[in-house]
Formats: sequence, C-alpha cells, structure tokens
Amino acid sequence: MVVIKIYDTTLRDGSQREGISYSTEDKLNITKKLDELGVDYIEGGWPGSNPKDIEYFNKVQDLKLENAKIAAFGSTRRANIKAEEDKNLNAILASGVKVATIFGKTWDLHVTQALKTTLEENLKMIESSVAYLKSKGLEVNFDAEHFFDGYEANPEYATKVLQAAEKGGANTLILCDTNGGTMPFRIKEIIAKVKEEVNTPLGIHAHNDTELAVANSLTAYEAGAVQIQGTINGYGERCGNANLSSIMPNLKLKYNEDFITDEQLSKITEVSRYVSEVANLNPPSHKPYVGDSAFAHKGGIHVSAILRDSKTYEHIRPELVGNKQRVLVSELSGKSNLVYKAQELGINIEEESTDLRAVLDKIKDLEHQGYHFEGAEASFELLVEKATGRYTKLFELEGVRIITEKSEDISPLSEATIKVKVNGERVHTAAEGDGPVNALDGALRKALISFYPELKDIHLIDYKVRVLEGNEGTSAKVRVLIESTDGHQTWGTVGASTNIIEASWQALVDSIEYGIKLKQSNK
Amino acid sequence: MVVIKIYDTTLRDGSQREGISYSTEDKLNITKKLDELGVDYIEGGWPGSNPKDIEYFNKVQDLKLENAKIAAFGSTRRANIKAEEDKNLNAILASGVKVATIFGKTWDLHVTQALKTTLEENLKMIESSVAYLKSKGLEVNFDAEHFFDGYEANPEYATKVLQAAEKGGANTLILCDTNGGTMPFRIKEIIAKVKEEVNTPLGIHAHNDTELAVANSLTAYEAGAVQIQGTINGYGERCGNANLSSIMPNLKLKYNEDFITDEQLSKITEVSRYVSEVANLNPPSHKPYVGDSAFAHKGGIHVSAILRDSKTYEHIRPELVGNKQRVLVSELSGKSNLVYKAQELGINIEEESTDLRAVLDKIKDLEHQGYHFEGAEASFELLVEKATGRYTKLFELEGVRIITEKSEDISPLSEATIKVKVNGERVHTAAEGDGPVNALDGALRKALISFYPELKDIHLIDYKVRVLEGNEGTSAKVRVLIESTDGHQTWGTVGASTNIIEASWQALVDSIEYGIKLKQSNK
Repeated sequence: MVVIKIYDTTLRDGSQREGISYSTEDKLNITKKLDELGVDYIEGGWPGSNPKDIEYFNKVQDLKLENAKIAAFGSTRRANIKAEEDKNLNAILASGVKVATIFGKTWDLHVTQALKTTLEENLKMIESSVAYLKSKGLEVNFDAEHFFDGYEANPEYATKVLQAAEKGGANTLILCDTNGGTMPFRIKEIIAKVKEEVNTPLGIHAHNDTELAVANSLTAYEAGAVQIQGTINGYGERCGNANLSSIMPNLKLKYNEDFITDEQLSKITEVSRYVSEVANLNPPSHKPYVGDSAFAHKGGIHVSAILRDSKTYEHIRPELVGNKQRVLVSELSGKSNLVYKAQELGINIEEESTDLRAVLDKIKDLEHQGYHFEGAEASFELLVEKATGRYTKLFELEGVRIITEKSEDISPLSEATIKVKVNGERVHTAAEGDGPVNALDGALRKALISFYPELKDIHLIDYKVRVLEGNEGTSAKVRVLIESTDGHQTWGTVGASTNIIEASWQALVDSIEYGIKLKQSNK
Repeated sequence: MVVIKIYDTTLRDGSQREGISYSTEDKLNITKKLDELGVDYIEGGWPGSNPKDIEYFNKVQDLKLENAKIAAFGSTRRANIKAEEDKNLNAILASGVKVATIFGKTWDLHVTQALKTTLEENLKMIESSVAYLKSKGLEVNFDAEHFFDGYEANPEYATKVLQAAEKGGANTLILCDTNGGTMPFRIKEIIAKVKEEVNTPLGIHAHNDTELAVANSLTAYEAGAVQIQGTINGYGERCGNANLSSIMPNLKLKYNEDFITDEQLSKITEVSRYVSEVANLNPPSHKPYVGDSAFAHKGGIHVSAILRDSKTYEHIRPELVGNKQRVLVSELSGKSNLVYKAQELGINIEEESTDLRAVLDKIKDLEHQGYHFEGAEASFELLVEKATGRYTKLFELEGVRIITEKSEDISPLSEATIKVKVNGERVHTAAEGDGPVNALDGALRKALISFYPELKDIHLIDYKVRVLEGNEGTSAKVRVLIESTDGHQTWGTVGASTNIIEASWQALVDSIEYGIKLKQSNK
C-alpha cells in the first residue's frame, strides 16, 4: 500500500496570496517548521524567475531536515530550443535541489493563446524538459497546469500531455485544477479515465475557487492519487490553494492514513499560526482544526453539554491537533460559560450569587459599548474584580496631555505628560514616543516604576486597533487590544472609545495593573 | 423534478459566530436582502429562547417578501409533558410564522447524557412536537441534530428518530452534521441507507469543522436531498456553517440547477458584503465567488494571460455573481499589471517608458515601508502623478499640532491646530474632535473650505487601522486606510508610519486632494 505524500507549496504558490511577501529568512524559518510537521516535499521557490529564490536554495542546503525534500519549481523549456539551452531549467539544476517540479500547458487554449506555439511543439517541450532533468539525476514532478479544464475542452490532448511527461520519465504526474472551478464528481470521473491511459503515479493540486479544494484533494486521494499539493492555511492566489492544515488532519484522523506521527500532527496548530505570523496576516481564527475558534463554544446549551462530555459538540479532541477548547464570555452566553471562565481564571463565583448577576450586567453593558473580552482575559479578570468589590487601585490618574506636532514632510513627534497619585504621592512625568500611545506608555511607566519595580519586566508585544463602525469616518469607535508579557506569561487587555487615545489608555492601564498584580502575587 | 430549496440560517445559527450580535433592525435588513437573493426560507430566530427574537417575528410580518418564507426555530417539547403545554412550542406558534423548524436529539449519547431522558420518551417528544405544530397548520422541518454522529453510534436509533418525525407529519427531515466531522463519502453512504427507511423529503445542515461543509451539502444534494441549510459567508459557531455564498453559485453555475434567476445570483456578492458589514466583520476577501480577491490577479504571467483571454485564469465570469476582475499593483507584479492598472485609471503610461520605471521604483520603495495600494487606488493615482511629474499641490502644510487631554475617568478631548498656505495665503485654524484624527480632519477642512468649496461634498466613510508588525507593542508601524465619497463615487487612500497621526495625515491629505481634483475635473 502506497503511503500518501504531502507536497507543500506555501513558499511558492502560497506566496501569491494578496499581501504576502516573505524574506529569505522567513522562508528558511517556515521550511524548518514544515519539516517538523512531517511534510514530504517543500517547494521553496522558482529559481528561474526570482533572484531572491536563488539565495533561499543556497541557504536551505545548510538546514538539517529530518523529513522533507526541497523542490524547485519551474516551467518547461521555451519553444523551439533545446532543453539544455533553457535558462529556467538550468537555474533549477544550479539550485542544488534533488526534486524539480515543472509545469506544462495542458489546455489547448493556453498552448495556442498564451504560449503561442503548436500543440505538437508543446508535447515535445514537456517530454524533453522532463527527460533533461531526469538525465541529471533529479526526481521530477510534472504539474499538468489546467489539467481538468484542459480535459473538459480536449480530453485527447490533455491525455497526450500526461503521456509526454510519462515518456520523459516523470516520477509523478500532478493533475492541477489551476482555476479551481472543478466539482468533486468530475475530479473522480476524470481521474478514473486518466488511470486507463497512464501508469505513472498521480498527484492533485487544487485551488479553492468553489470552496472545494479540500474535497477535491480528498476525492483525488480516494481515486488513487498518491501526492497531495497544498499550502498551510490554504494561502494562495484568489481564494487560495488546498488547505493542508485541514487535509492533513482529515487524512490522519478521518481516513486513518498513517503518513505522519501523532506527535507531528499535534504541531499543526502551531505551524498554522507561525506561518500566519510570518506572513503578517491575522491567524485564521475560524479555520478547521487550527483556528482559535475551532473548538470555541458560545451557545449556553453547547457549553453545559461539553462541560459534561466534550464529545457532544467536538468532532475530535482538540489536543490531537495541538489546539484547545475555549468557552467564550459573551453577551449571548449563559451562566455556565461565565462560571467556567471564572474558574479557569481561579476566581470562585457561585452559580446563583449576586456577584454573578453583577458581572453579567457589566459585561453586557460594556459589550454594547464595543468592548470584547474574547482575547482580553486580563481585562475580563479585572472587570470581575471590580464588579465583585475585590479590586484595589494601584494609582490614581489626575491628568494626561499628549501633543503631536509636525511640519510639512517631517515625521511628527509625540510627547505625553502625565500626573498620577501613587500611595498619596503626586508624580508628574513626561516622555516622547514614536506615536501618541507610545509616548503615553513611556510617561506612565516613568511615573510608576519607582513604586512598582516589577514594571521593568513587563512589555507590550502586540497592539491592535479595530474600527468598529465602518461608516462614520474618523469619528468611528475604535477598539484597542493590547497583548503584554513578563517573559513567562502573556495577557490581553481591551479598551474601546471614539477616541483612540482613550481606548489605548484603557487597555494600557489594564495591561500594567494586571501585570503588576501578577508579578506581586508570584513573589 | 424537484427544485432544490435553500434554507438560510444566517440570522439564527450564523449569529452563533464569535463576535456577531445583531439588533432587530439588522435582522430585518438582512431579511430583505436574503429575500432579494431568492432563498426559500429565512430562519429568523428562536422565539422560545430569546425575547429579542420575538420583536423580530412581530416586525418581519410587515415586510413584503417576494420569495422567502420566514421560519422560527425551536426544540422538541420537554420530557414528560404534553406538547400543548410546552412554552417553547407555543412561542413558535405565537410568533406568527408559517414554517417551524424544530430540532430533536438523534444521538443516543445526547438523549441520555444531555437531555437526561429515555430513548423511548425522546421519540415520543419528537413525534408529538411535530404533530402539534402540524395540527396548527404549520409547515414543519425536523432538524435531526447530530444525525450523522448518531447514525455512526447507533444507526437503528437514529433511523427511529427520523421515523418518529415522519409519523408526526414532518414536511422535511433535515440531516444535521452538527459537529461538522463527517466525510463526504459517509454522507453519501448514510443518505443512501436512510432513503430505504423513510419517504419524507430530506435536507442537509452541515458545519465546516473539516472544511467540507460545502462538499457535504453538494454530496447530499447529489444523493437526493432537496433542502440545503446554510449561512451567508459561512458564518456560524466554531468553523462556521455551510457557506451559501459558495453553494448557491456552485448549484447554479456548475450543476446548472435553475433554482434562482441569473439576476438573483448576480446579487450574491453584494449580499455577502452587506451581511459582513452588518455583522461588523471584515468582508471575507478570499472567499470563493464573493471575495474581493476571488478574481484578483497578482502573478505577472497570469495577468498577461487574462489580458488576452479572461477564461485562462478565471473559472467563471465574475459578473455572473456580481463580482469583478481586479489586477493587483504589488511589488511582485510585472509591468503588465501596472500598465493595466494605469489604463484603468485613465493614465497613459507606455510599456517601455522611463515613467513606468519611476513608478515601479516608487511603489517598491513605499511597499517596503508598509504602504499597500490594493484598496487605495486614489493614493496610487496620486503616486503615479507625483512620480511622473504630473502632480500639482493644492496647499502647503506649515505645521500641525494635536493635543489630547484627559483627567481621570473623563473622556479625553482632542484639539488640532493647523497652519497651511493656499495660493500664497497663510491660514491658521483649530478644531476639536472625538479623537486626534477627527480633530485633524476638522481643522484641515476649515483651512481649505473657502479655497475649495467642493470639500463640503466630500466625506470620509471608513477609517481602518492595521498594525503591521505584531511584536513591537505601541511603537509598531501602522497602516491607515481611508475610504471617502462625494455621494457619487468612492475612493480609497493609504498612509503608513510608526505614528498613527502621521499615517492618518497622509491618508487624509490624499483623500482630500483626490476628492477636490475629482470634483474639479467633473465640472
């Protein structure tokens, strides 16, 4: 029985997604993560088209990879020259890889219109290009671009294309649904036909333009394809490539395909979030298996049930993919959510107490104002303390003023001055910063540090701004989320206001108060 | 031949998504849009569980709907009482709907553990609840909750549940994959078995926990289900419900199912974006069919090809779903993208000119600094003007100062003062605002309005802030996107800086300059 091979193209096809641009260092870091995850192939780039990719292929040779082979991407040779003379193919050879993936035109329309050559010459280009790379000792995947559209238009020619690559000695023939428009039932029917015409192992490369890339990949697998191409988080041009973050768990947990270890599978959530971070995109919170919300429960009925037996509303145990169950604190949620959450935070609230009612009322009120405690658990904890009379102030604000000045074409300077009272003592400080909030942060720290030396270990690591109403221009309400750390733990805080300074102030004060109290309680 | 029915639960199951909370007005507005789209059923809420939903059901009766029937959701009666005595069922009747959808437990585990009743009593609850609602003249859908998990655990009991609903007179039996964990091949096999045991029409309600909700819905349709339940944009708890924004185009364009008109289908992009706006979520830019990126092209090869023939890289014509082709201006893109884009904007750049090189260099430089011209076409147009020497300044900034002051627990006040020179004349103005950027906007408008009276028609409609690097706290770089309108056209502008005031200033100035020039050229 052939074990399925996973071919990752996050670094090449995945980087075609709007907004993504990886540095060489980014690509090397992602390569290491993908290798730990246990993918079989990592397509690193296109040495013939992009000089930056050549640097990657040089450096990747120094990585000690455990599982994955590095593949270089490219096209078949240009028309009417010898393969040996083709710059693109020689760039692949020069890159030092042991695996090449070259794509060729399969749809007659593309051969005549985009490539502007004859159908016959295209077949020769495919065969000779594959044969050339094979003669140099490379393993060669042939990507049959637009295979399914080509097959619908001209099945005979699409089949000849595969046979040309087979004659050239290709190790695997990858059937690409380049435009992502093919339905699963056609994938199945067409693969059955193809298997009558070629003997080389098949692979699938699907795109998500009909929201069926995962289904098409699994359909191809069921039909006998032995290589699945895709990207982490389904990143890719337009609607993305087939999402390996869903395909790999599906294969392992639903089809019981033993192609990676349990330990490797348990890294997939981490890999997903790592890639989104490096890509500078928000983590895909609602994605299957790996999303922050994939095992998050909001409805009161669901929450009571999962507290009794998690299987009731979870199709797998989240730990299998390195994710975890979450219960959301929200306006809609019932008492059991809040009690669960408070317990998780080590706060003991009784199910029928007046404290619980007070906290629920406060949450409801604040959420109406635009606050959101999902992701701001430190603010939530302070809110519970305040609503139940457990809160003690660390300082009193008397006043704060922030000035930002700029002249034409010169970057502005922000300065904050702050007056606070700590333990009855009045402190007045000032600080400059990159922006108004950065200046405010600086001035507040200066004011508090001599009273709370713990502050020196507390740092802001993320600052997010979300505009809440999309139709009121610059007077819209904003929500600020701040994430902070003391080097060991991280915590999130929230503020909301029509004034971004006020919203930032609220989140900043919560962050600092929570951090100081945390450090004090750990002493 | 039975025509497939679309059952929309955006307002009920869809609102379980993290972060969504609709007002009654929101729900009524979405109802109108869904009706225009041509869905057959709109599930408005759960009158028995949520008092806010009762208001919706009262008001929705005044809407003149063309296509859709309004459905109310609820559960079967409680154990050991009569259906007539059940508050939940009577709330459905009181809501005034003609269609009820009630769910019952199908998985034996849930009956005994969550419901804490006997398997036998559960069957009676289902039959009598359906029969009661039917006796009052309602059309009744029975949602078999956890049907597929229940069937895997105890096929005999799951079948009995369906038969109980059938005996009660249910119009349709909805097979729910509540936990979203079922693979398409099992959906197909199980539906085939079910059809041997019941005669009532079947429906499907899928969740996306394995990224297969669309595939599972289509598989059920192929197996003979005649009702598909889902939500716009696939909103829903955890990983969401089956996405109608993909299912409807797939059925119409790929299966040639004639269940809505071409005109209705062409509204689906608008409906998708409308719902995301009302839900206060970013529009789902990479979603199939309806996403802003669904027909966006970045790679240079793709762009040259679609300029020749759009079919080469688009699986359908975007207009069919009311979407449009976009070519992205990006660091990665080639000359053909830029020429295409410039032509679209009415700027004539030659493919081989030095102008083109200058613009490409400028874009590359600015994108490295964090600018992003996707979505900021007005800034792009001004950039092209600047890089090619076509730009004329409307005013010169001499200086600007913004002060934000607050005292404890009082919302801060922001004031901006600005000095500009317009046509050699110096103007000095001041304005207050909800926040620093709002104040700045006010002061700049005051300074310019007497010179450029066109300004009074120009308004900011959206203001977005994105933090670019996620790991430097409040000194992170921010990108500001502003969308503006003159009542006829809208345009987007961008700014980037470590200082949010500076980034906002850049986007604001571009917005105002572009708007004034636009109005002047239209005169």
